[in-house]
Amino acid sequence: MRHTLSVIVENKFGVLARVAGMFSGRGFNIDTLNVAPTHDPKYSRITATVKGDTQQLDQCIKQLHKLVDVLEVIDLAQGAFAARELVLVKLNAENGKRSEIVQICDIFRAKIVDVSQRSVIVEMTGNQEKIEAFLNMMEPFGIKAMARTGIAALERNRKLEL
Amino acid sequence: MRHTLSVIVENKFGVLARVAGMFSGRGFNIDTLNVAPTHDPKYSRITATVKGDTQQLDQCIKQLHKLVDVLEVIDLAQGAFAARELVLVKLNAENGKRSEIVQICDIFRAKIVDVSQRSVIVEMTGNQEKIEAFLNMMEPFGIKAMARTGIAALERNRKLEL
Repeated sequence: MRHTLSVIVENKFGVLARVAGMFSGRGFNIDTLNVAPTHDPKYSRITATVKGDTQQLDQCIKQLHKLVDVLEVIDLAQGAFAARELVLVKLNAENGKRSEIVQICDIFRAKIVDVSQRSVIVEMTGNQEKIEAFLNMMEPFGIKAMARTGIAALERNRKLEL
Repeated sequence: MRHTLSVIVENKFGVLARVAGMFSGRGFNIDTLNVAPTHDPKYSRITATVKGDTQQLDQCIKQLHKLVDVLEVIDLAQGAFAARELVLVKLNAENGKRSEIVQICDIFRAKIVDVSQRSVIVEMTGNQEKIEAFLNMMEPFGIKAMARTGIAALERNRKLEL
């Protein structure tokens, strides 16, 4: 099962290596992870998706809490969260194919950020299902390169999805 | 000076911990970092921004190349790249202030993804300058929480910015 964790840490030297080491030491392969300062630059937020057993994950969360630089660990399955990811995809786009790509981008509200004779780079944001659906539609054109950020998530104050 | 590195690694156990450990071992504090599978799930792409001396960074890149699971390391300052970041910001939004926030969001093409009596969550994507400008505009309303993905980047085939 896939889990998403949000971890608030002190913005210090080597903290990411320790947190990442904790996951791999416990047998969790990190699927996606991102880390950046919060609005208070003293702290950073790590958002990670990992695959594994729920019981093992609970153990891992307890261990994370024990690290001195970790302030807070939240399992995002436990609440209502707004979660978004960004992906840049470079696609084969020979002259005949470009308009088809542009049409699909319009449907998904994706933006073309670069174009050349043979390729385009598309920027797309959404929740993970939307991104997977978009990538499935783009697959037949030929994906030349891809950069995904992994999801960023914040707790909602209300339960309804906008 | 801030540097952005794109590192292609094998999608294996513990690789992120080793790469992150390499940065901290060399005295680089990671400002932002993200990692996710590429279009070929055998490989992942790590995009990291670090602050430090250019000469030291060259040393660090050489060391990264020596790690068996590292396939490619590119210093993004060396070429033309499309770089985008996503940020979720939770803002104080009492009834009188909400319309002002919505106006600024429209200007920046930011999207409101959650709303409650006292707060809104806004999703914004762009290059780092645009995100900084947006956060500066939002600061006076009161930022309650923030989740940034760090930048994702792909090499352009042409030099012009769209």
